[in-house]
Amino acid sequence: MAESKLAAHRTVANELVQLALPHAGKSLRLGITGIPGVGKSTFIENFGEYLIKQGLKVAVLAIDPSSSKSKGSILGDKTRMQMLSRNENAFIRPTPTSGSLGGVAIATRESILLCEAAGYDLIIVETVGVGQSETAVKSMVDFFMLLMLAGAGDELQGIKRGIMEMADLLLINKADGDNIRAAKLAAGEYGRALHLFPPNDNEWIPRVMSISSLNMDGMAETWKVIEEFSRQQKVKGYFEQNRHHQMLTWFKEALREGIIEQFHANSDKKKEILKMEKAIEKGDLSPSMAIKNLLGN
Amino acid sequence: MAESKLAAHRTVANELVQLALPHAGKSLRLGITGIPGVGKSTFIENFGEYLIKQGLKVAVLAIDPSSSKSKGSILGDKTRMQMLSRNENAFIRPTPTSGSLGGVAIATRESILLCEAAGYDLIIVETVGVGQSETAVKSMVDFFMLLMLAGAGDELQGIKRGIMEMADLLLINKADGDNIRAAKLAAGEYGRALHLFPPNDNEWIPRVMSISSLNMDGMAETWKVIEEFSRQQKVKGYFEQNRHHQMLTWFKEALREGIIEQFHANSDKKKEILKMEKAIEKGDLSPSMAIKNLLGN
Repeated sequence: MAESKLAAHRTVANELVQLALPHAGKSLRLGITGIPGVGKSTFIENFGEYLIKQGLKVAVLAIDPSSSKSKGSILGDKTRMQMLSRNENAFIRPTPTSGSLGGVAIATRESILLCEAAGYDLIIVETVGVGQSETAVKSMVDFFMLLMLAGAGDELQGIKRGIMEMADLLLINKADGDNIRAAKLAAGEYGRALHLFPPNDNEWIPRVMSISSLNMDGMAETWKVIEEFSRQQKVKGYFEQNRHHQMLTWFKEALREGIIEQFHANSDKKKEILKMEKAIEKGDLSPSMAIKNLLGN
Repeated sequence: MAESKLAAHRTVANELVQLALPHAGKSLRLGITGIPGVGKSTFIENFGEYLIKQGLKVAVLAIDPSSSKSKGSILGDKTRMQMLSRNENAFIRPTPTSGSLGGVAIATRESILLCEAAGYDLIIVETVGVGQSETAVKSMVDFFMLLMLAGAGDELQGIKRGIMEMADLLLINKADGDNIRAAKLAAGEYGRALHLFPPNDNEWIPRVMSISSLNMDGMAETWKVIEEFSRQQKVKGYFEQNRHHQMLTWFKEALREGIIEQFHANSDKKKEILKMEKAIEKGDLSPSMAIKNLLGN
């Protein structure tokens, strides 16, 4: 229902979420990103198993803004996280979509609340690392992890500054076999690089660790950092502050989507817009001038 | 004026663009992206010099969605493109901004038209490779280039599928010194990778080349590909079709921005929204339910 675009479904989803609200909010929300091939699925599978062994219930949601050209879902592969998906204490929900990121983000936020009301202790929101989706995920989680690989040459290649800035924990994955030394070196380099960034408002100093999700190395250490973060942020009051702020962000984004939808439901302007589109196509009218005429601002 | 947010400046800009419209459209618009460190500045500097030697006038515009945390401009460095910026046949305009990408994109589109009306033959729009800005640039140029490096290991690391899909030409830069072999190998691998992508609607088959902007190797070849693209697309009618489509995209985006602005100018709803924000912060109201109450949809 939360993922549907049908008006009838949306109404049900709205009511469900409103009813779930008093029972939600008790989980820890983790965001995770990294470029394709970094080993996100293996990490989530093994980290999820580790958390379940600690007596926790884990939900995994995925934001997948599909390739705009092929419209194919990157997360379509059903073979991902096979072990975890069979565990009764885990819930896995990839949400492939060909729609706007805004719509996906709203559905995922609602899914987080619904999972929490259903008793999940940890909500892991995964994104496939295609740019803007990271910002959306960051805006709906308590803790944001970035999975990376040790690369040869420039260790900062391919990493978007903005995304490294968002990370609370940087995990250098595949620290196994011949790659251990390179991963540890990379962790050191990233640690130094993070020091160049301005400090976080929440006083948290981002950590860097090398792990091997294949060998299940670093799962306990990762969890320890997350628990430390959660404890510290709750004591300092930033935890609640961040959640309030996120609810407002959600509201503002949903409002944007709603306003646009409503405007286009107005059929009077539809005709006027079509006329303007024709003049713009002919090169007679500039888009900015058209907006000015249409909205009078 | 086009970059300003002041209402009085916007009015002047709108009129200027409307006046420039009949004199615009005659240039070739090139988009260029690539991760930091790939050598975009050196490429544009040397490619620009090459084009000017062919008797062309070159304008370089840059889209720079600044880091949302530090608000610093990545393009602030004044030492970039020193040679080109002193050439009387070149115009260079970085547009750092801490605002929304939507606003930057509108300003850049207007700047393109103004540069064309001012007689520039080539408009190069550069983006710093932070995700969503590439899509914005792709939507305002005729030809889109992606600069890359030959990396060790997995040649596809760090490249977002969606961005590779958008490229009309993939340039493997720094094919110089010890790196020539690696660059040529990478060009081969990317060439094969591109074959896995669905064909373009405009029938253009993306090219891959290795170049060295440092040694000015590949400038003529790059230009040759762009000219071939332009010729082919004009003959097949896709060139004009794409430009019309882009004008409509511009209009639709600007309309979105305008609608949101107008909605928020309505002071009646401002109070209602503030009340809802408080209820949302307290956890009494879900954002989706608030939107439903506010907009009635």
